Amino acid sequence: MHPSLLQDAGCPKEIPHNEKLLSLKYESLDYDNSENQLFLEEERRMSFLGFKCLEISRWVICGLIGFLTGLIACCIDIAVENLAGVKYFVVKQNIEKFTEVGGLSISLILWAVLNAAFVMVGAVIVAFFEPGAAGSGIPQIKCYLNGVKIPRVVRLKTLVVKVCGVICSVAGGLAVGKEGPMIHSGAVVAAGVSQGRSTSLKKDFKIFEYFRRDTEKRDFVSAGAAAGVSAAFGAPVGGVLFSLEEGASFWNQMLTWRIFFASMISTFTLNFFLSIYNKKPGDLSSPGLINFGRFESDVSSVAYNLYEIPLFIVMGAAGKNPLLFLDFSTLLLVNHGAILKCVCVCVLRYVHQPCLQVMEAMLVAAVTATVSFAMIYFSNDCQPLGPDQSEDYPLQLFCADGEYNSMATAFFNTPERSVRSLFHNPPGSYNPLTLSLFTLTYFFLACWTYGLTVSAGVFIPSLLIGAAWGRLFGILLASITPDGSVSIWADPGKYALIGAAAQLGGIVRMTLSLTVIMVEATGNVTYGLPIMLVLLTAKIVGDYFVEGLYDIHIKLQSVPFLHLEAPATSHWLTAREVMSAPVTCFNRIEKVGTIVDVLSNTSTNHNGFPVVVPVAVCGLILRSQLIVLLKHKVFVELARSRLTQRKLQLKDFRDAYPRFPPIQSIHISQDERECMMDLTEFMNPTPYTVPQETSLPRVFKLFRALGLRHLVVVDSENRVVGLVTRKDLARYHLGKHGLEEMQLAQT
Amino acid sequence: MHPSLLQDAGCPKEIPHNEKLLSLKYESLDYDNSENQLFLEEERRMSFLGFKCLEISRWVICGLIGFLTGLIACCIDIAVENLAGVKYFVVKQNIEKFTEVGGLSISLILWAVLNAAFVMVGAVIVAFFEPGAAGSGIPQIKCYLNGVKIPRVVRLKTLVVKVCGVICSVAGGLAVGKEGPMIHSGAVVAAGVSQGRSTSLKKDFKIFEYFRRDTEKRDFVSAGAAAGVSAAFGAPVGGVLFSLEEGASFWNQMLTWRIFFASMISTFTLNFFLSIYNKKPGDLSSPGLINFGRFESDVSSVAYNLYEIPLFIVMGAAGKNPLLFLDFSTLLLVNHGAILKCVCVCVLRYVHQPCLQVMEAMLVAAVTATVSFAMIYFSNDCQPLGPDQSEDYPLQLFCADGEYNSMATAFFNTPERSVRSLFHNPPGSYNPLTLSLFTLTYFFLACWTYGLTVSAGVFIPSLLIGAAWGRLFGILLASITPDGSVSIWADPGKYALIGAAAQLGGIVRMTLSLTVIMVEATGNVTYGLPIMLVLLTAKIVGDYFVEGLYDIHIKLQSVPFLHLEAPATSHWLTAREVMSAPVTCFNRIEKVGTIVDVLSNTSTNHNGFPVVVPVAVCGLILRSQLIVLLKHKVFVELARSRLTQRKLQLKDFRDAYPRFPPIQSIHISQDERECMMDLTEFMNPTPYTVPQETSLPRVFKLFRALGLRHLVVVDSENRVVGLVTRKDLARYHLGKHGLEEMQLAQT
Repeated sequence: MHPSLLQDAGCPKEIPHNEKLLSLKYESLDYDNSENQLFLEEERRMSFLGFKCLEISRWVICGLIGFLTGLIACCIDIAVENLAGVKYFVVKQNIEKFTEVGGLSISLILWAVLNAAFVMVGAVIVAFFEPGAAGSGIPQIKCYLNGVKIPRVVRLKTLVVKVCGVICSVAGGLAVGKEGPMIHSGAVVAAGVSQGRSTSLKKDFKIFEYFRRDTEKRDFVSAGAAAGVSAAFGAPVGGVLFSLEEGASFWNQMLTWRIFFASMISTFTLNFFLSIYNKKPGDLSSPGLINFGRFESDVSSVAYNLYEIPLFIVMGAAGKNPLLFLDFSTLLLVNHGAILKCVCVCVLRYVHQPCLQVMEAMLVAAVTATVSFAMIYFSNDCQPLGPDQSEDYPLQLFCADGEYNSMATAFFNTPERSVRSLFHNPPGSYNPLTLSLFTLTYFFLACWTYGLTVSAGVFIPSLLIGAAWGRLFGILLASITPDGSVSIWADPGKYALIGAAAQLGGIVRMTLSLTVIMVEATGNVTYGLPIMLVLLTAKIVGDYFVEGLYDIHIKLQSVPFLHLEAPATSHWLTAREVMSAPVTCFNRIEKVGTIVDVLSNTSTNHNGFPVVVPVAVCGLILRSQLIVLLKHKVFVELARSRLTQRKLQLKDFRDAYPRFPPIQSIHISQDERECMMDLTEFMNPTPYTVPQETSLPRVFKLFRALGLRHLVVVDSENRVVGLVTRKDLARYHLGKHGLEEMQLAQT
Repeated sequence: MHPSLLQDAGCPKEIPHNEKLLSLKYESLDYDNSENQLFLEEERRMSFLGFKCLEISRWVICGLIGFLTGLIACCIDIAVENLAGVKYFVVKQNIEKFTEVGGLSISLILWAVLNAAFVMVGAVIVAFFEPGAAGSGIPQIKCYLNGVKIPRVVRLKTLVVKVCGVICSVAGGLAVGKEGPMIHSGAVVAAGVSQGRSTSLKKDFKIFEYFRRDTEKRDFVSAGAAAGVSAAFGAPVGGVLFSLEEGASFWNQMLTWRIFFASMISTFTLNFFLSIYNKKPGDLSSPGLINFGRFESDVSSVAYNLYEIPLFIVMGAAGKNPLLFLDFSTLLLVNHGAILKCVCVCVLRYVHQPCLQVMEAMLVAAVTATVSFAMIYFSNDCQPLGPDQSEDYPLQLFCADGEYNSMATAFFNTPERSVRSLFHNPPGSYNPLTLSLFTLTYFFLACWTYGLTVSAGVFIPSLLIGAAWGRLFGILLASITPDGSVSIWADPGKYALIGAAAQLGGIVRMTLSLTVIMVEATGNVTYGLPIMLVLLTAKIVGDYFVEGLYDIHIKLQSVPFLHLEAPATSHWLTAREVMSAPVTCFNRIEKVGTIVDVLSNTSTNHNGFPVVVPVAVCGLILRSQLIVLLKHKVFVELARSRLTQRKLQLKDFRDAYPRFPPIQSIHISQDERECMMDLTEFMNPTPYTVPQETSLPRVFKLFRALGLRHLVVVDSENRVVGLVTRKDLARYHLGKHGLEEMQLAQT
C-alpha cells in the first residue's frame, strides 16, 4: 500500500520520509455543506414528502451496501476455502505418498510452488494494475473517514483487485488474514452504490443524485466500513463502533441507525449464503468470516477461572502472574511494533519496481512453505486423533497410526482454523515447545509478510500469534502452580483468547470497538471485562513506546490526520498563531482573469477562498465551485447578452463531482478574462468564523465537530485575517518533549 | 414524577398544560467552556503531567460510578427478592391453608393488605419527602443529558428515596419494574461522586474540584446513566449506546471509553456480589437485574424458525402473517400510548395532594392483588408440575396433585420471573385463554399504575405484556398452520421475545440502544436482525400516530428539548427570524448598578449577556459569573484602593457551583452601585457567532454539536443583533401540517 500511495503522491524517491513532515498534497473532504443560494432554493422547494423519500433512499442504499458487502465476504470465503482446500488436499496426498518411500523434498517443492503461484497472481494484479489495493486498506479508510481525500481509494478497480488479491494471498498460505480487506471492500461498495453511477464503467443510473457530495458520500462510506467489519467478524455492533471511533466526530443518530442497519444486513447476508453453501440453510450460528467459536460459561470452573483475571488485574498490587503476563504481552507487542516499523520503512524505501515486488511476494510465499514444512518435519509432537475428527487436514507424517502431528494443525491449515483450535482444543493438545517455536516463526513470517505488495490483513496473524503465546502462557501457568489449584488454570484456551486480544490490541490500538468485536466474535459477554482491561493496558503501555501500526502508517505517509482532540497543553496557541495568512480573497463580483490566475497558481494551490465586501467577510467559495462556474462561463456580461442562457443548477455541480477538471483544461479566451463573475449566488454566505484570540483547543473542537475544511479567522470588525485548514491543526502534536510542530512539505 | 416537576416549576394548577407551549422556566447547562482569562491561565499553568492526572482521575471516578451503581442494583435486587419472597411465602401458606377449608377471601385480604402496606411506605416517602423521585426518572435524565437543568434531579436525597421507593413498589406487587430507576440512580451517583462533595450532607472532600462545572458533570452523568442501564440489563454496550443516543451530540472518544468502563464495572460488580449472595461465587452468567435467559440456537429447528422472520418481513409483499403480527403489535402499542397519554394527563391534572397520591397508590396495590387473585381463582388452566421445579411459588389451588395453576405463574410472581417463564417455558405451558386474559388485565393495571406517585419503571411491565401477547400469537400461529409445518412454529418463546421487543420499542421508541440491550440480555446475537427490524417498524408506525412515552412526558412538561436535527423543512428560516432580540449587552467596563438592575429584572431573566466594545461583540458573560463577581465585589475602584485584595480565582467560581445564589441575596450598597466592574478577565472572549443569514438547520447543527447555551447573531460589521438560545430552536417542530411553532410561556 505504501509504495503506491507514495507514487500517487508523486514524491521523488530520494526524499526521506520524515515522520515530522506533513504533506501538502492531500486534500480534505468537504463535510460541511456549502449552503449557497442554489442549495437553499433546492431545499426550500423540496416538500416534506421529498425529505421522506430521501430518507428512505438512504435506508435502501444502506441495505444494499450491507447486502453487497455480505455477498463479497461470502465469495471471498468460499473461494479461499476451495482453493486452500484443493491445495492442502494435493499436498497432503503427496506428503502421505512420500512419507513412506522417502523424498519428502518433492512435497516441499510442490507446496512451495503452489504457494508461490497463488501469491504471484495476487501480487501481479496488485503491483501492476492497482497498487492502491495493497495491504488491508484500513489506514486509507481511517484517513478517508477522518476527512482526508486519498486518491483512488474508493474506486471500483481497487475493489476488484483487492478481492482477487486477498483470495490469492490467503490461498497462497501467506501469514495474512482476509478480514482487514473486507473493511476496505465495504467502503468501496458504499462509495459506489451511494453515487448511483460508476465513473470507471462510464455508467450513470441517474439515481441518488442528491447524494453526490462529500458529506453524504462520507456518511455512506462509514456505513460500508461498518458493514465490512460486521461481515468479517460477525460483529454488527462492533462495526458501528469501529466507524464511530474512526470516523464520526458529530454524533448523528439517524446515521448511526443506518450504519447499524447496514452492518446487520451484511452479517446476516454472509451468514445466510454461507449456511446455504454449507448445506445447513438457516443455521445462523456463524455470522462472520472468522468465528471464535463459543466459549461456554456454563461449566462453573470456567466462570470461576474467569473472574480471577479482572480481580487480579484490579487488585494486583504486587507483580502477580497476571500483571507479569500483561508485561510480557506488552513487551512482545512493542517489539513487534518496532520491528514492523523497521520493515515498513525498509520496504517503503527500497522495493519500488513492481517486478521486484512480485518476486519478493513469491519468495515470501516459498519461504513460508519451507519454514512450515521444516517445522512440521522436525517436530515430534504427536497427539492422538480425537474421535470427533476436529482437524481438517490431520497430517500423520512420522507419527504412529491414529495420531497426528500437532505442529501441522498450526501450520498446515488456514490461519482462521488455527486460531480456533488454539482457543478450543482441549488442554494437552499442544506441548509448550511446539507453541514457542510456532510463535517465534510465525511472528517473523508475519512481520516480513506485512510489507509485501499483496492485498491482505493483519488481524488474523496478530490473533494467531497472540493465541499461541497466550496458550503457551496458560500451559506454563498450570505447570508452575501447586497441584491443589491446577483446576483453576486448567483451560489454556482462555489464555489463548486473552493473549490474542492483547496482541491484536497492541498492534491496532483500538479499544472500544475491538472489545465489542472480540465479545461478539466469542459470543459471550462474560469475557467483556477482562478483554477490555487487557486492551486498555495494551494500549496504554504500547502508546508509551510506539504508536499503533495504522498510525505509524499514516505518519509515514505524512497525512494530515486530525486526532480526536487538540494536544492537552496547547492552550498557549491561538488562532492567530495557527492560521495561514495572508489569505487570497475574492470580491463578490470578481474579474475572471483574476480568478483564473489565482486558480492556476500552482505554488499556493488553495482550495477555499473567502469572499469579501469591501473588507468584511461575506462568504466562502471553493475551488471546485469556481471550476464549474468557469467551465459553464457564468459571466455577468454573457448573462446580459444572452438572456435565454440556462441558469446554472446544483445538478451541474453534482455531475462534475467528484472529479472536477483541473483549471488547465478549461479554456478562457483573452476577452473572457476581462469579464466579471458574480459569486453571490454560489458562495457559501455563512461560513463559520472565529476571532483571532480563540485558543487552539477551541478551534480544534469546532473544526472537528463540524467536519470543516476551511475556518475563516476574523478580527473584531469581521475582516479576514487568516484561514485555518486541516494541516494547520494537524501540525501540532504531543511529542516526548511537550508540544511539537511538524514541518509542512510539498511531498 | 409529573406533579413534582410541575410544583417545582411553580406553575399555577389552573393553567392547562398545553403541548404547544414551551416553558421559559427551564435553564440550560453550559456544555461549552467559558474560555476566559482565568481558565486559560490555569490551563497554561498546568503541565502535561497535570493533564495526565486529570485523565486518571476521570477513569477512577468512572470506575467508582460503575462500582457504586452496581452495588445499588445489587442491594435493590436482594431487598426485593427477600421482601417479595417473604410476601409470596406467607400468602402461599395462607392460600394452601384456606383452599381446603374454604374462606379464601381471608387470603385475598392478606395479600391486598401486604401489597398496600409495602406500597404505602414507598408512596409516602416519594410524595412527602422527594416528589422528584417518582416514576422511572428516565425522562428527567434524558432532559439532563440533552442539556436542560431539571431541579433536584441529581440530589442525594432523590437517590435515597428512589432506591427505597422502588424496593417498596416492586415488593408491593405493583405492575412495575426496578430497571428504569437504576438509570436515574446511576446518574445521581455519578453527579455526586464526580463533584467530590455533597451539598446535602454539607461535606466537601476537596477532591475533583476541577470537575465542578457543567461540562464535566454532564459527561460523568452520561457515564452514570450508562452504568445504570448496564446494571439493569447486563448490557454494557447497550448502556453506552443509550447514553450516546440520549445525550451525546459531540462524539468524544475518550469519554465513550470511560462510559464503557463504568458500564463494564457496573455490570460485573452487580454480577459478582449477586453470585456471592447466591452462594455461587464466580458464576458470572447473570450480569443484570433482569436476565432473559439464554436462547440457544444450537437446535437447528430454532435457527430455522428464526431466519423465516426477517425473510418474511423483508420479502413480505402481501399481508403475510409476520406483517399482520407487526400490525397487531403496532395497533396495541399505539392504543397503549394513547391510553397512557390520557392517564398521564388525568393524573397530572387532578391528583395533587400528597395524601391523595398515597391513597391512590395503595388503592392500586390492593386492586392489583384483588384482580390477580380473581384471575387465579377463576382460572382452571392446570399444568403438570415439571420435574425441574422451575416455578418458584407453584400454586396448586384447585388443581389436582402434581399440577399447578398456570395463571399463577404469571400473576403470583415477580414480573421478571414471569417474563422469563414466558420466554422459556416449553410449548404448551400456557393455554391461549390464560394468556389473553393476562395480557388484557395486566395491560390495564400497568396503565393505571404508571401515573402513580411511586418510584418505578415501565420496562418490565412492557416486556411482560409484549411477551404475553407474543406468546399468544405464537400459539395461535402454530394452531392455524397446516400440520406439516407445525415444527416451524413450534416454539412460542421466540414469539414472546419478539412481542416483548415490539411492545417495549413501541413505548419507549429507542432503536439502536434497545436492540443492543435486548441482544445482550438474550445473550445471542442471532436475534439481532429480527429484533432490530421489529423495533424499527414499531418506531416508524408508532411515530406516525403518537410520540413515545418519554417524549410525551417531556412535552407535557413543556421542556425545551432539542431533538437531533432541525426539522427537515426548516431551511426557510434564518437566524434573523429565530433569534431573540433585542439583546441586553454590557460594556467591557460596566457600572455595577446597571448590572444589578439587569440581573434583578425578573421579567427578562436572561442568563447570558454579550459584551460589546463600542458596538462590536467582544465577549460573552454568564449570569452565574456576574453573581460571583458581585458577591466578591470585584470592582475597579476597590481594586485600586485595596491593592492587597486577593485576586479572584477559578476556585471561587467552582465553590459556588452549582447553586449560585440569587441576585436578591447579594447586598449592594448605593455607593457600590456607582462603582465600575471590569469584565475583560472573566468574560468568554471568543463566543461562537453566526451571521444573520444563517439557515436554521445550520444554526441548529452548530448549537447541538457544541452543546451551546448562547449563540450570538451578528451583522456584517460584527455588531450584536440577537441571541439564539435553546428555546429559540426547540420552538420549531414538525407537526401534521408542516413546520409548527410553539408558544413560549412563563409556566
